[in-house]
Amino acid sequence: MATILILGAGVMGTAISIPLSDNKHEVHLVGTHLDGDIIKRINQTGKHPNLQSPIPTNIKAFPIEELHKAAEGADLVILGVNSLGIKWAAHSLLEVLHPQLPVILLTKGLAGRDERIYILPEIFRSELPRAWRDKISIMAIGGPSIAGELAARHQTSAVLTGYDREQLPSFVKLMRTSYFHPSISSDFVGVEVSVGLKNLYALGLGIVCGWPQRAGNEFIEPLHNLSAAMFTQSLFEMAYLAEELGGSRDTVFSIAGIGDLYVTCQGGRNFRMGRLIGSGISYHEAKSQYFPQDSIEGGELAFAIDETIRKFTMDGFLSPQRIPLLLILLDVVVRGSGFMPDIGSFFFGG
Amino acid sequence: MATILILGAGVMGTAISIPLSDNKHEVHLVGTHLDGDIIKRINQTGKHPNLQSPIPTNIKAFPIEELHKAAEGADLVILGVNSLGIKWAAHSLLEVLHPQLPVILLTKGLAGRDERIYILPEIFRSELPRAWRDKISIMAIGGPSIAGELAARHQTSAVLTGYDREQLPSFVKLMRTSYFHPSISSDFVGVEVSVGLKNLYALGLGIVCGWPQRAGNEFIEPLHNLSAAMFTQSLFEMAYLAEELGGSRDTVFSIAGIGDLYVTCQGGRNFRMGRLIGSGISYHEAKSQYFPQDSIEGGELAFAIDETIRKFTMDGFLSPQRIPLLLILLDVVVRGSGFMPDIGSFFFGG
Repeated sequence: MATILILGAGVMGTAISIPLSDNKHEVHLVGTHLDGDIIKRINQTGKHPNLQSPIPTNIKAFPIEELHKAAEGADLVILGVNSLGIKWAAHSLLEVLHPQLPVILLTKGLAGRDERIYILPEIFRSELPRAWRDKISIMAIGGPSIAGELAARHQTSAVLTGYDREQLPSFVKLMRTSYFHPSISSDFVGVEVSVGLKNLYALGLGIVCGWPQRAGNEFIEPLHNLSAAMFTQSLFEMAYLAEELGGSRDTVFSIAGIGDLYVTCQGGRNFRMGRLIGSGISYHEAKSQYFPQDSIEGGELAFAIDETIRKFTMDGFLSPQRIPLLLILLDVVVRGSGFMPDIGSFFFGG
Repeated sequence: MATILILGAGVMGTAISIPLSDNKHEVHLVGTHLDGDIIKRINQTGKHPNLQSPIPTNIKAFPIEELHKAAEGADLVILGVNSLGIKWAAHSLLEVLHPQLPVILLTKGLAGRDERIYILPEIFRSELPRAWRDKISIMAIGGPSIAGELAARHQTSAVLTGYDREQLPSFVKLMRTSYFHPSISSDFVGVEVSVGLKNLYALGLGIVCGWPQRAGNEFIEPLHNLSAAMFTQSLFEMAYLAEELGGSRDTVFSIAGIGDLYVTCQGGRNFRMGRLIGSGISYHEAKSQYFPQDSIEGGELAFAIDETIRKFTMDGFLSPQRIPLLLILLDVVVRGSGFMPDIGSFFFGG
């Protein structure tokens, strides 16, 4: 049995502890400096404030101040912070990491930096001491996994990826249960582009969902035909971007892309944010009014890549004709532009 | 301007008349022998009983007895009957068809016959007089188009396919409006396999949606993670079958497959039938109790291909490992087998 340190006690970091605990691993769940109350609550009540399912008693919850203690004897680190916390996490872990300790990121995202788009595991790696960068095995897990359902032990699939493909089966084995089914992909870029971008495209699909509620709107029924075209277009654009960034389009047309986009359109924060925008509120208004404390990963992604994507389209490195919907969504989120529900404006007939 | 004969006054046959009418074509909508009341209602009230939107006054509605009159000067026939009516339609049209009159099928489906799986346009063609079979241009249109939304002129995409690719652009031009966006595919088999099978897979996704309502079920919340895995798996199986039947997997991973499956999971008859099965009723019970008059295309498809698919898997022409979900769904619909919501039973980790 392994000892596993999970850093970040959000819903996903906590949910992944359940199959690990069911597999009899020793799980140490460490909250970030923002998770103090969550850790207290888990220790007092055996429940996470945002998950219905009780936390198995063999999962030990620690505040960030006890990171050292929690990391003792760890065989694996799982990173469950949000995308804005990735550098903080890298720095916090410096004291307890070592070159033989592999890290799996649950955190998803992309970042524009130095005129390139980086996947988040690269950003994490770049924050490590130079001597460790190629030694620490970095992996990531994505796919259609709503945390509450995984925590409730409902059937869930996922995909594990990493730089060292040969290592992956042993980590899948660590996590796999009768209800949790991680598969393997060696396309790190394809997986990360999929699971990162899906949040922004799901926000876009939320806009269509909210559109009928817009004041003065003559529509009353849902716009499913438009949603279906946008869902398809989203995947086409993700496939194009995955390829341009060095991944494979096949990964997008798999559980990492299709599956994850599908589940993200079932009502998570990104989709709900889109619905608010669709009903007529700007991203900034909706953020401050409805999600003052929550990170909206699709929105964060838009801010993180907007400048670089714009530059790439101007430099000819990316074709704006291949990502019309992304460009619209960046305008909507970052610049508060309006959204026209018109297939003609983005649909290239894929 | 063209004169267009639409045979079948169901919701889709009627809805497609709206963009044609907006493009100033002369539209003659002919009900089948089952559509008599619909035609009367349209002529009396200007509305279809199952569509909210009024029928434009330049669309002329005819009962089947006036087929000859309605066919006068027709430049194009559009077939809007359901899959069970395809032979009836071919025979009825014999009197008015001629080799220069192209036919576009809205009707979707597959059929097992003579130890082969046929797409419906092939079945239609085989019912024509031998001398006409290679002369009449046969096309089909599919894609994510809920009829009510198209009739309400909401943004809708679709895909037009046919044996003679060079002809397609002129027919797209006939139909395209600011809200209706047909694209072109030369992969007739891929499109038809996608739009036919999607009904059965959507029924499967309905089962997952109905599952939490099952008596004695401990689940209370939706099973979105499972749905997302099944949605992805459905497309993988459709892609495999499209390839095996002579089409391209890329067509499945486009608007014809992804888009159409997505929209079909938003609550149509197939999905609702699945939900009933999920809640614990057999297909036959649900059909006779809730849909005594309606054809459930996904169910009809199951009966139409079950024997041939079983034979193909036994003969080794199809690999059961590539279509585990289809085999489960055939058992559920045709033989009333139970459904286990377990990713492990179908998920091959795509």
